Formats: sequence, C-alpha cells, structure tokens
Amino acid sequence: MKILVAEEAGFCFGVKRALKLINEYHRQGKKIQTYGPLIHNIPVLNDLAAKGIEHISAVDKISKNKTLCIRTHGIPRDIEHRLRRKGIATLDATCPLVKKGQKIIEALDKANSRILIVGDKHHPEIIAARSYAKKVRIINSLAAARALSRCREISVVAQTTLNTEFFKEVVAILLDKTEKLHVFNTICQATRDRQEAVKKLAPTVDAIIVVGSKISSNTKKLYNIARGKNKNSLQIETCADLQNKATLAKLKKFNSIGISAGASTSPQELNNVKNFLQKL
Amino acid sequence: MKILVAEEAGFCFGVKRALKLINEYHRQGKKIQTYGPLIHNIPVLNDLAAKGIEHISAVDKISKNKTLCIRTHGIPRDIEHRLRRKGIATLDATCPLVKKGQKIIEALDKANSRILIVGDKHHPEIIAARSYAKKVRIINSLAAARALSRCREISVVAQTTLNTEFFKEVVAILLDKTEKLHVFNTICQATRDRQEAVKKLAPTVDAIIVVGSKISSNTKKLYNIARGKNKNSLQIETCADLQNKATLAKLKKFNSIGISAGASTSPQELNNVKNFLQKL
Repeated sequence: MKILVAEEAGFCFGVKRALKLINEYHRQGKKIQTYGPLIHNIPVLNDLAAKGIEHISAVDKISKNKTLCIRTHGIPRDIEHRLRRKGIATLDATCPLVKKGQKIIEALDKANSRILIVGDKHHPEIIAARSYAKKVRIINSLAAARALSRCREISVVAQTTLNTEFFKEVVAILLDKTEKLHVFNTICQATRDRQEAVKKLAPTVDAIIVVGSKISSNTKKLYNIARGKNKNSLQIETCADLQNKATLAKLKKFNSIGISAGASTSPQELNNVKNFLQKL
Repeated sequence: MKILVAEEAGFCFGVKRALKLINEYHRQGKKIQTYGPLIHNIPVLNDLAAKGIEHISAVDKISKNKTLCIRTHGIPRDIEHRLRRKGIATLDATCPLVKKGQKIIEALDKANSRILIVGDKHHPEIIAARSYAKKVRIINSLAAARALSRCREISVVAQTTLNTEFFKEVVAILLDKTEKLHVFNTICQATRDRQEAVKKLAPTVDAIIVVGSKISSNTKKLYNIARGKNKNSLQIETCADLQNKATLAKLKKFNSIGISAGASTSPQELNNVKNFLQKL
C-alpha cells in the first residue's frame, strides 16, 4: 500500500512554540498549570498531565504557588486583567497570530468600527478575541451573513483556523451589505497551507485519514475539506481508532491512503499512523 | 407576443441629473459644450448635437465664449486644474457617485495605501478616477488579480458600472494577496439594480433585448449577464437595429421577449423598442 502524507500537516508554529515554552518551564523544575487546555489535542494534553501540568477552568482554581500558562487560543481580556490584579505570575503561550487578531479587534474597537468575527462563538479563540471589543458580532454561517442589515462600514476578522473558502464566501456576501468593507485576513498561514495540501492530496488517493482531536477546530475543517474531495475520508484521534476489525478490513482494500493532521497533532502521532498503515 | 421590461432599466440618477443640468443651461440661452461625450448613448448625444451642444476632446478646443460641461464620467484632475487656471467656466455634470469614487481614491492616496481600481483602463471614468492618486493599478481580469504580488495592505475601488459578480471574484483573489484588504464597493446602486433585474428576467423569457450604445460599459455588462442566462440575447442601439428581415423573422417566432436597457438609454428609446415588439 502507498502511504502519502500531505505536504503540510501536524504541529504549527504556534503549537510548537507553546509546547517549547511550557516544557522548558517544567524542565527548570518550576510549577505550572494552564488556563484551559493548552492546545486541542488529547494525547498531547495527556503527556502534559503525566508531567503534572494540568489545566484549570476558572480564576478561583488557580494555585497560588504555580505560574499560570495562557493557552494558545488566548484568554478573555477581563480574565487577564483579573490575573494581573491578583498578582498571579503568567507565562503567555498565546499563539502570536491569535494575539495579532486580538490587537486588530482592539484597534477597531477604538476606531468605533462595526466589528464582525467569522468563526465559532463557542471556540476559546473567539471567546478570547471578542473580549477585545465592546461590541462584536460572530458570524458562523452564510445565512447569518445574509441576515445582516446594511450599514455604512464593516470590519471583519477571521478565526485563525477558519476554512479560507468559507471566509471568501462570507466576504462576498458582506460586499452587498456595505460600501466600505475592511477585511483582516487573520486566517493563519499554517491553516491555509494545511487546507491547500489536503485539497491537493485527497483526490489523488483511494482514502484519506485526518489525524487530530475531535475538539480541534482546524482538524475538523481539514476533515471536511478532505470529505468534499474524497468520500473515503476518516478522522481519527490516534492510531488506536483504526484498530477495529471493520476499519482494518476496509483499509486493507485500498491501494493508496493519504494522511493529513491538524495543527495540534504531534509528529509522533502522525508517524504512528503512517507506520501502522505501512504494515497493513 | 408577451413583452416584459426588466424591473430596473434605462436612465439612472446620474444620467438624468446630467441631462437636466445641461438642458436647463441650454434653455436659458447659454452657450455650452461638453468635455467628451456627456454620456455613452449615441441617440441622446445626437439630440444634444441638434441643440448645438457638441463635445470637444481636448482643452485647446474649448470655445472661450462657452461654458464647459464636465461629463458624467468625470475628467482627469490635471485637466480640471488646467481649466481652472485658464479661467474657463464649467458646469459639473460628473455623476455624484463617480465623484465619490474619486474622493475615496484621493483620500487613499493621501494615506499612502496601495490602490487598485477594478475596471477598464480605457474607460473615461477610470481615466478620470486614476488621476486622483499618484500611483494606482487597474485590474480588469481575474488573471491580472492573480498575478499581483503579496503585500501588507491593499485598498480596492470599483468602476461604478462593474459587474458585481466579477468584483466579488476579484476580491476573493485579493484575499490571498494581503492580510488587510479595504474594499470600497463603489459599484452604484443603479448598476446593481439593473444587473439583478436582467439576471431575474432573462431566464423567464424566450429572448432578451438589451437596449444601449455599443460604447456603453454598463449596457455591455447587462448584455453579458443576459447572454449568460439566455442564449437568445441581443444588444441593440435603437429600434432601427431590429428592422432587418432575418432579425424580424427570428423575433416573430418567440412567445415572450424581455427588454433591459443601460443607464444611459432614454425612456423614449426603451418605449420605442417596446412598442415595436408589441406590433410584431
């Protein structure tokens, strides 16, 4: 069987940076906990937990003797202010590209622009990002974009892990809503590269496996893109998800399988899947 | 035969305004000439010529004893300055929406933004508009948009009579070229309304006739939209273009014919076509 890994797949710059920061901190023997899961990948979070690096979900759960690591997706501005007021030591692992989006929203808010964020309002990146403006509207469907009223000016920002084609469709709709549209294409290069790579790979193979957590937004989008190009698309978290009879029987029938992986999927996991498939 | 006129067709606000201005001036017994054809419609220009209102093509052809009417499409900034320096009396019939585009370009130029205009570089509106910035690039094809290099920030303005779908396609391409895209949707409402109306009407009739001059940019776009929806599409300048045997024989076979007309097509001409078809 031919196994082809997408040209761009797995850990992105922001994830690598966050893991490097937190692991170095841990190696120096310092106590650390994270505000929310550091990244959206269960095996990686399990590795951190094994080192004693756990995540908390509220400010009142912070251990006074530990440094608090701010997750890659960022945290809401008011929480950051509360941490500062409480004098809690922090290690900021917010992805610099996520931070950039926050700064854009903050500047737009000062300029009193009507701000839209295209993304998922339940995603931590967006929960954090929206806190940087007094008023902001989250758009997560073409229908929601179409339902917007016309206005003089609109500024629009994207979730860093958004599907680029979806963003373009929303922008086209927004063009009918205003005469002055400021588009901040904050979809990160890693997202775009991974999406382009899976779009290219999926139609050339018999089946495609996307490795990444069910809770990973960018992995889900990679899977959706793959499925649009290849009906034999599968999203798995780890190699273990392949080890059932029905799946194995199906996989063995293919002559070629492509692999893609979300930005929070470790190179180890990606390799595990690759090695597993090669032995089929 | 059923004759259906598109919901929006013919003279737009800017054309009506320009004709009102120049005709009132003429009625007051004042001598006037226009800088370039006032609008892009031969029968209307012939009417003006019959009243002694001719157009000139260069500043040195201006009659000192006449007021100079600035055409709906506007004139380049340096020519306007030359006229002012020469002390020539002017009547500004520039469409206010065209003027608005010029002011946007002027402001962007002051802000040192990279300016793109989507439109036809040979069209008088664009020749005038581009003069409002030191440096501007005209984009008239998807290939030209794709060929642009990436840069930090782009501001984009549209010809008022542009095809809205084409503009959206260009904007989608530009989103891959920059992280900060400012879109000024300067396509005028009349253009959008006429395009929407012909898009709606064309598939519901056996044939569609678009009335307007061959030199009219917006008429040409209406015709292209009609042709995309109905293979029996025809662009004519006046009723006379229908009066040949082959065309008449063809038209008589249809049970329903739609009519659309460019923004510079007079209601009289539109009615002439309607009456002519009704008598077939």
